[in-house]
Amino acid sequence: MQNPRGEGRPWGGRLRQAADQAALRFGASIAFDRALARYDLRVSAAHARMLRRAGIVSAEDAAAIAAGLEEIRGEIESGRFPYDEALEDIHMNVEARLRQKIGAAAGRLHSGRSRNDQVATDLALYLRDGCAAARRGIAELRGVLLARASEHMDTVLPGYTHLQRAQPVRLAHHWLAFERMLARDSARFADAARRLRHSPLGAGALAGSTLPLDRDFAARELGFEAPSANSMDSVASRDCALEFLAHAAICMVHLSRLAEELVLWSSSEFGFVELADSHATGSSLMPQKKNPDVPELVRGKSGRAIGNLVALLTTMKGLPLAYNRDMQEDKEPLFDSARTLGDSLSVMASALDSLQVNAQRMAAAAADPLLLATDLVEALVREGVPFREAHAAVGRLVAHCLEAGLDLLRLDRAALQNFHPAFPADAGVLLNLERALESRAMPGATARSSVSAALKAAESELAADAATIADVDADAAESDARGESA
Amino acid sequence: MQNPRGEGRPWGGRLRQAADQAALRFGASIAFDRALARYDLRVSAAHARMLRRAGIVSAEDAAAIAAGLEEIRGEIESGRFPYDEALEDIHMNVEARLRQKIGAAAGRLHSGRSRNDQVATDLALYLRDGCAAARRGIAELRGVLLARASEHMDTVLPGYTHLQRAQPVRLAHHWLAFERMLARDSARFADAARRLRHSPLGAGALAGSTLPLDRDFAARELGFEAPSANSMDSVASRDCALEFLAHAAICMVHLSRLAEELVLWSSSEFGFVELADSHATGSSLMPQKKNPDVPELVRGKSGRAIGNLVALLTTMKGLPLAYNRDMQEDKEPLFDSARTLGDSLSVMASALDSLQVNAQRMAAAAADPLLLATDLVEALVREGVPFREAHAAVGRLVAHCLEAGLDLLRLDRAALQNFHPAFPADAGVLLNLERALESRAMPGATARSSVSAALKAAESELAADAATIADVDADAAESDARGESA
Amino acid sequence: MQNPRGEGRPWGGRLRQAADQAALRFGASIAFDRALARYDLRVSAAHARMLRRAGIVSAEDAAAIAAGLEEIRGEIESGRFPYDEALEDIHMNVEARLRQKIGAAAGRLHSGRSRNDQVATDLALYLRDGCAAARRGIAELRGVLLARASEHMDTVLPGYTHLQRAQPVRLAHHWLAFERMLARDSARFADAARRLRHSPLGAGALAGSTLPLDRDFAARELGFEAPSANSMDSVASRDCALEFLAHAAICMVHLSRLAEELVLWSSSEFGFVELADSHATGSSLMPQKKNPDVPELVRGKSGRAIGNLVALLTTMKGLPLAYNRDMQEDKEPLFDSARTLGDSLSVMASALDSLQVNAQRMAAAAADPLLLATDLVEALVREGVPFREAHAAVGRLVAHCLEAGLDLLRLDRAALQNFHPAFPADAGVLLNLERALESRAMPGATARSSVSAALKAAESELAADAATIADVDADAAESDARGESA
Amino acid sequence: MQNPRGEGRPWGGRLRQAADQAALRFGASIAFDRALARYDLRVSAAHARMLRRAGIVSAEDAAAIAAGLEEIRGEIESGRFPYDEALEDIHMNVEARLRQKIGAAAGRLHSGRSRNDQVATDLALYLRDGCAAARRGIAELRGVLLARASEHMDTVLPGYTHLQRAQPVRLAHHWLAFERMLARDSARFADAARRLRHSPLGAGALAGSTLPLDRDFAARELGFEAPSANSMDSVASRDCALEFLAHAAICMVHLSRLAEELVLWSSSEFGFVELADSHATGSSLMPQKKNPDVPELVRGKSGRAIGNLVALLTTMKGLPLAYNRDMQEDKEPLFDSARTLGDSLSVMASALDSLQVNAQRMAAAAADPLLLATDLVEALVREGVPFREAHAAVGRLVAHCLEAGLDLLRLDRAALQNFHPAFPADAGVLLNLERALESRAMPGATARSSVSAALKAAESELAADAATIADVDADAAESDARGESA
Repeated sequence: MQNPRGEGRPWGGRLRQAADQAALRFGASIAFDRALARYDLRVSAAHARMLRRAGIVSAEDAAAIAAGLEEIRGEIESGRFPYDEALEDIHMNVEARLRQKIGAAAGRLHSGRSRNDQVATDLALYLRDGCAAARRGIAELRGVLLARASEHMDTVLPGYTHLQRAQPVRLAHHWLAFERMLARDSARFADAARRLRHSPLGAGALAGSTLPLDRDFAARELGFEAPSANSMDSVASRDCALEFLAHAAICMVHLSRLAEELVLWSSSEFGFVELADSHATGSSLMPQKKNPDVPELVRGKSGRAIGNLVALLTTMKGLPLAYNRDMQEDKEPLFDSARTLGDSLSVMASALDSLQVNAQRMAAAAADPLLLATDLVEALVREGVPFREAHAAVGRLVAHCLEAGLDLLRLDRAALQNFHPAFPADAGVLLNLERALESRAMPGATARSSVSAALKAAESELAADAATIADVDADAAESDARGESA
Repeated sequence: MQNPRGEGRPWGGRLRQAADQAALRFGASIAFDRALARYDLRVSAAHARMLRRAGIVSAEDAAAIAAGLEEIRGEIESGRFPYDEALEDIHMNVEARLRQKIGAAAGRLHSGRSRNDQVATDLALYLRDGCAAARRGIAELRGVLLARASEHMDTVLPGYTHLQRAQPVRLAHHWLAFERMLARDSARFADAARRLRHSPLGAGALAGSTLPLDRDFAARELGFEAPSANSMDSVASRDCALEFLAHAAICMVHLSRLAEELVLWSSSEFGFVELADSHATGSSLMPQKKNPDVPELVRGKSGRAIGNLVALLTTMKGLPLAYNRDMQEDKEPLFDSARTLGDSLSVMASALDSLQVNAQRMAAAAADPLLLATDLVEALVREGVPFREAHAAVGRLVAHCLEAGLDLLRLDRAALQNFHPAFPADAGVLLNLERALESRAMPGATARSSVSAALKAAESELAADAATIADVDADAAESDARGESA
Repeated sequence: MQNPRGEGRPWGGRLRQAADQAALRFGASIAFDRALARYDLRVSAAHARMLRRAGIVSAEDAAAIAAGLEEIRGEIESGRFPYDEALEDIHMNVEARLRQKIGAAAGRLHSGRSRNDQVATDLALYLRDGCAAARRGIAELRGVLLARASEHMDTVLPGYTHLQRAQPVRLAHHWLAFERMLARDSARFADAARRLRHSPLGAGALAGSTLPLDRDFAARELGFEAPSANSMDSVASRDCALEFLAHAAICMVHLSRLAEELVLWSSSEFGFVELADSHATGSSLMPQKKNPDVPELVRGKSGRAIGNLVALLTTMKGLPLAYNRDMQEDKEPLFDSARTLGDSLSVMASALDSLQVNAQRMAAAAADPLLLATDLVEALVREGVPFREAHAAVGRLVAHCLEAGLDLLRLDRAALQNFHPAFPADAGVLLNLERALESRAMPGATARSSVSAALKAAESELAADAATIADVDADAAESDARGESA
Repeated sequence: MQNPRGEGRPWGGRLRQAADQAALRFGASIAFDRALARYDLRVSAAHARMLRRAGIVSAEDAAAIAAGLEEIRGEIESGRFPYDEALEDIHMNVEARLRQKIGAAAGRLHSGRSRNDQVATDLALYLRDGCAAARRGIAELRGVLLARASEHMDTVLPGYTHLQRAQPVRLAHHWLAFERMLARDSARFADAARRLRHSPLGAGALAGSTLPLDRDFAARELGFEAPSANSMDSVASRDCALEFLAHAAICMVHLSRLAEELVLWSSSEFGFVELADSHATGSSLMPQKKNPDVPELVRGKSGRAIGNLVALLTTMKGLPLAYNRDMQEDKEPLFDSARTLGDSLSVMASALDSLQVNAQRMAAAAADPLLLATDLVEALVREGVPFREAHAAVGRLVAHCLEAGLDLLRLDRAALQNFHPAFPADAGVLLNLERALESRAMPGATARSSVSAALKAAESELAADAATIADVDADAAESDARGESA
């Protein structure tokens, strides 16, 4: 009754020919799905507890399984687990190891489940943790942005549009813009996590099981709210992985923009900032170089995050229900994006934290009176001049100064009135950097009070957000603990 | 004081040379951003009311502006608006037209705003409506799926994995899987809409304004909760558009899978369904053909939705703050994905609604007793046999039947016991389609009671969801009405 | 025997129900495939000549068809053609119009062909022209780059790595780098065109025809080398469209890099160039602004080209043979990328052509003696010092100067020898901008002679390339002429 | 003069602070760029020979370097090389190891080069080999397709459009369609390789070198035609990597289509083929399953190839000249696509080679007389009936048979003439499978003679192609040998 040809593979009976070795290697996922080991063990432990409770395995076998899984967890955490590519995936590696440890009782563990619902459950747990980890990484970077903003409330630089100097802004205001983007990124991951509250376990291959499984119990044991509502959906869907990849790609695009600015600002031409030596590199040839490698790499890695999203979207396109083997391709892009995002958030946080700001260079760039031309327009508007008329007048005035090499600040009221009779004062009075900032005192604008209020609001929001992430982590820890003490 | 060279362009004063005509055409967006006209008018009307309230324009001018905008709205809705490519975009087209109608007062409308915050506000309103429209389209398709599921509670077909027949399922259960995917899609759009509750209006070019704008008032007038917290973020960010595109791509991938099944099932080989003639086409050459064009097109259009997402992600990658002209490229992919998703949801709903199901062909395919092999395994497990041992025994049994050409159903208990001594009864007793379905009575599985409960729960959820969409629509209508009566 | 329900659709007999209007609109391609009209008419004319030659239609009918098609061509070119969305696509619009003009004989035109091979042939012709047009656009931009390079042989600026000043280069050398990228892009389109030399016409729906078609004759009439070798491949493949999209995306990425530099160099901080007013825009709010919109748009549109490539790759993924309706989605991305690439090449050519170069600002940036630090290293290497030792010594020297605020140029030999005893002369002798450029006299480097040789070689290559494009155009014109005189 | 802080990093002098460990890990590429080791050693060996020839290093040092590199090659090939992540990349690992072996002379190897031109040269060699390897893999699969086609010249199955049975074709004809796609894929890789004939070596960081390098000699030593024409292009461009990724993605899309058919055809519903057990898997739960995993994985992996292409396109978008650290992100997608393509071609070749064809099931599916309806139309056309009229008549005839349940084959001439008076014979005479195939005797169609000619032509082309790949391999081997004997 033995079948050596299929030994170790979970379908010994049906196929009579040994696997082609190249085909086996082509399909093996153990090289990457070992990242799921922690979750797979948690799922197996909960499943075993459920099987005992439902009377499908004896208390004795369940205890042996629990103990064996716990040993295996130790082996994996300490790097001693003997992975075997011939066993294809993490699930079979664990089951085979369990058999070595506890014998035939290991063969009872897979009762009432399939690798289809097992991997879907592993993945849901991975994603839940991945969302929390992304939120933690985002919170860390937001924290650094807020701290540096607080420090640079009175550092002024030009705000740019089209990379042309536009209007002066506080550096605090500039960095708070990124903090707002990241706050939305964090909210996206929180939303994604809420879509992961139903447990796939018990969906079986696609139709559930004839055994009296207690799906509610297993779901709660794993920290889910409830079992999933449709067994085919549970094993066939990967939209939660796609959503994670999409949010990661959007967040990486945000980081690529912050990185672009650090690269720009580190150039000799801008000279606004200098990265710490610890976050730069030199050149293998040119001894004078100091290169902003960290932000360059982050910027470059946004491509990778977008590529991963495209990869899985394309893989899922057009697949009929339920599980298809194509879906094994979900893991590498997911793991890669999670790691890329986490690392990028972390190095950007430390790069920003150790960044040296050259406030003088910024101030010098912001001192150009042309940056206040809009204020001249609005001075006319306040005198009752229609905006378009005011804009045109100031446009001619600016062009005149550029062509004649005149300093805008030196123009007296009479000179101004050559361009529009309604100018109420000298240019020097109307064009004042401090007034320009402070007169923009509405919510979200550049006055000290506005920026300060925005900073405080962001700090409160971040603190509240951090608390909810901590809750998630506590849940996960508790779920792990249940597994360990079972 | 006239400058004919820049006539009609909003910066007459500064640039002295006429625009290169090819460059102008290259940058013109009026061919596509007219889709924003409705929102642009609403934003301008609210802005004008705010300017009046803040004392920046007189009541008389404000009334003229409001009346003029209302006339323009009429022209646009009736297709009589004279679009002019030389005016580049929808904002300049509207302002120029307003000037024709009300004269110089039109020049006061742009006080305290820039096209940067204007278009960001237009886009936020467009996206808010776009999310609601997507949810309505999804709700329509979910409704059809639930109706057809209800009708086919007792139609049985094989569930497939790897496109191999796996286990029998109810057609209701199969279609409910898609309804679950769509429910998550709808939740994604609802989440995205919640990130659009802050008004960009008043952010100006990037730093707010020195005029005493009342951003709170304008925000409320437009149905936002509050003004945005950071002016640079408001004009520089497009992550909400990216999020919409991502959710649309994920939803289109779901539709591509449903479409793939309709194509497969329409083939002669499956023969499970027949599309209504109204949703199929013939061939220009082969007179016998009836082709499932609607699902094929939906499947194909998933590529377009993914391409649109990639386009904008790539465009935004690496852009420094704040507005850059690259960002004009946000509109076409967004409009195209919104339309593609809306149309695809709608035609899939009517295709499914008019679909003819061939329950006999499905039943015949599901009748293969091999689909119940798992039940034999679980029968042994219930007798106390370890799962792996049971699985291997049934594997050998199946292989034997296939090779010897035996009918599994005809095997008596003795024959079964050659493969494992614990078989408790004849195959004919153990392998019964109805029992196979009904013994899977846990939540989310295939028993009539389980599927029925899932159907009812889904109906309730859909009804609740529809109510919240209706609320959104009511808000939008009210906001429009405020605009009209202003 | 009439069937009013399917009137105008090419399969009146088989389907009994009228098309659903929404489904019809969903599938209609006439809004975009009219871009193929010119090719469709050419293909139909060649097909009709072949049918006459093969004796399948009479000389009289063939003459009527040819005359009718010629009239239709006139209507299309003059914008008088009455497109009808109910007729779905360009092929049916043309045939229906032909019937109005010449009656029943129009019904003979489709003998021995299907829309599948017809559209594949249209597309091959479109792509052949598209490759030639891309090469022409590229040649135009290369020409401008070479002309501006020739003009700026002695304009020196810093070459950058990591956006840090690295080593001085001639502006001619810098722009020749882009010319080389574009030369490879042109070669890619030429290669793609060579894969389009086999005619799909005669492949029918997928299996050819039982009528005695002369595929060789039709292929030659259309300027192909031969008929295609496999009828199923002919109607099922879109790899040549994918290749075009890939080459367009790569070329747009090259343009995005040139555009990025124009944006950077236009900033106040760099100040290296100023775009002509004709290629810039102002601001609707800030009167002082001059924005580099043309390069920003080109940079942004690279996202669109990548999105189009992804769209069609995804659409084609996983489609079984032969034609599937999904493939109708090939056209819009293709047409859009062809137009985007053509327009971008053209506006970049005129933007560069009219660009004002600020050689003084470039020279000032290049004057930093630190840019010559590598030359100090190599001076030591020439004295026999191992490279790594020399590099480390100069590194310390540079760090010392930066920290102590010393001018590297002022260091005499003794000071240098504190860092390494082998320094052969004063820094002022070793660090000379002109010598730095001229001592790099190997092929491909920055000496005047090297750059001059490279420029001449590029000019010759471009001239040779232009000649082969002209040949392609002549062929196309001849093929058109055959059609017109038929 | 020591600087322990930067030890092992190639810019000890300039930066005073130790690298942040997380930042170092973030930027380290040694985990993946070791795939370039073979090429890096070849490049270093050629560079050392050039330095000796140019008199920059002594014969003695050059010999020590050559011997040391050869030892390192041995260590790498045997897996004994001690990779060190702290040394970041393959180049620094090799140089550090060389220093351990030969001392200070190792420090002379980097004279006149930078990692920028070094890695560009490594990459060019990698791509050249990658193109050859892709062509070999494609040739192997084409060979299997031709062999199986030859075997199945008389196996007939339905050709499908829209997955509806359309017209009968020979299985040989069907598979030759894929061989044609792959032939174009091979030509694409050959074209890409021709764009890699210029050596980047000697481009230095971006501007060449002041040392008297002999770029021509080094280029020839490495099997290039000539040195590159522009040093900045050489270090800044990655379009040849993009082109490789694009061709790989297109080829993977072709494989995804072949894979889709194997999955479809393996279903119970089609039953056209059965994969060897060696290329299938069973189920961990359902004992009766035999799943087509190999083609499913290939289909899924097309997503990965598209994702890799997108990743690098996006990474390169908008980068100014010359080298930026972002470009380090070129390697992983490239290596992954090369491996994915190679493995997929190989497993598809063995899967097809071992595939069991069920010719009876195919024949039964092709026997449906409706597949010959087009032949009825063309019979009328041969009688002089206009095509459209004939098509409509046969359409009505088919609809009548379907509705009345009549067998088309049994209709006599009189019955036919109720639908059109011109029918020349009984349906049984007009509708004959063998005649249907054989009457399509034009080039590229389904007659035995046509398919046979196409098969022979493909065999010749493949043999010629294989010869040119062998030439490439011989060149590479010779280049390696030069390195070894130096």
